[in-house]
Amino acid sequence: TAVDVALSAQSTELAGQHWVITAGPTMEAIDPVRFISNHSSGKMGYALASAAASKGAKVTLVSGPTQIPPPHDVKLVRIQSAQEMLYACRAAMANGADVFIGAAAVADFRMKDISDQKMKKTDDSNEMTLTLVKNPDIIATLASEKSAQCMVGFAAETNNVLQYAKGKLERKGLDLIIANDVSRQDIGFNNDQNQVTVLSKDQQWTPPKDAKTELAKALVQIIFDYQHTQK
Amino acid sequence: TAVDVALSAQSTELAGQHWVITAGPTMEAIDPVRFISNHSSGKMGYALASAAASKGAKVTLVSGPTQIPPPHDVKLVRIQSAQEMLYACRAAMANGADVFIGAAAVADFRMKDISDQKMKKTDDSNEMTLTLVKNPDIIATLASEKSAQCMVGFAAETNNVLQYAKGKLERKGLDLIIANDVSRQDIGFNNDQNQVTVLSKDQQWTPPKDAKTELAKALVQIIFDYQHTQK
Repeated sequence: TAVDVALSAQSTELAGQHWVITAGPTMEAIDPVRFISNHSSGKMGYALASAAASKGAKVTLVSGPTQIPPPHDVKLVRIQSAQEMLYACRAAMANGADVFIGAAAVADFRMKDISDQKMKKTDDSNEMTLTLVKNPDIIATLASEKSAQCMVGFAAETNNVLQYAKGKLERKGLDLIIANDVSRQDIGFNNDQNQVTVLSKDQQWTPPKDAKTELAKALVQIIFDYQHTQK
Repeated sequence: TAVDVALSAQSTELAGQHWVITAGPTMEAIDPVRFISNHSSGKMGYALASAAASKGAKVTLVSGPTQIPPPHDVKLVRIQSAQEMLYACRAAMANGADVFIGAAAVADFRMKDISDQKMKKTDDSNEMTLTLVKNPDIIATLASEKSAQCMVGFAAETNNVLQYAKGKLERKGLDLIIANDVSRQDIGFNNDQNQVTVLSKDQQWTPPKDAKTELAKALVQIIFDYQHTQK
């Protein structure tokens, strides 16, 4: 019957688990009207949140500005800046978490000083310099604080993708990293399709190129299987 | 009848006129994934385009990235950067135009050099400087080229609003300027309501605070009346 089908679509493999997932870009203010951001659509993080929730996990989704409707059965926390994202993640994991996935495209830098008035151009200067300071490295910070049992990062790269991803995995103290070649026009940022390679310290998985919603299910399964090999 | 009502809603006061209107933010690339932009929603420019079209004008709307559906009876030209906006406006006005309205929130500056790879943060530097160069002043450039008979600018300011607006009107060689206090939370950027003051060299109009769609109709009427006082 229709009810049986609906029930079987929901699985309970992740029942009792708490997953915290970040998504979207961050938006770093320059002044009251201008900001620095990036082309992340948030689709991958939202798809991961939906996939984990449909397997029965309690999911907190910490999201920068996106145009995506809030997923069902997910607690959505909206933020703008990287600092706000860090604080929201810490608050979400204050009582621990099973999995953290950093799918947001967090700005590496923010303005050193945010102007409280709109900056005006002056006729005598043809150049302007913005001085930026490094944002906290959210996932490395959370990994060092042992916020979740399984820390999963993303590496969006344009060249030497797997090599950079492996470096990030080790440097940031992650369990898994999902490597993404954003130089390819057919996948990644602002695209519905994606192809990635998941790396652990000593293993590697490459699920087929697929719609982000389908790929998210495959990634949640890989993370779930990885959790079990570690027990 | 319903047909009579539909016909009377369309007026033909602007029949035979060509209006070129810019809208939305511009998006200035930093590298393949990052950009500088601003919080303009594009609502005011889109509302002006619809209002002019409903009075019978041929309208070209040159728009930065927005989430607004294309208005009916308007030729929509999508661009990203300020330089692209300038070229698109020049192309639209190659055979002249009656009115140009610069409602876009054009970035004053763009990157001096756009990196063709994603810039990587290095562990040894906690600061980064972005060197920006001035974008072309689109409306001042078009005014100096006498692209349209009536040049209408916007002045989005956070303080000394009318004083700055009057200065812009004169410095840029405009006919009218629409002054907008973006420090007010109840109006302006990303808000459906707006209140503005229109200034010419020697006159001033303040239509009531209203929804942007209604305000746009009042502004089109002010511009139309101004055209006639100049003939």
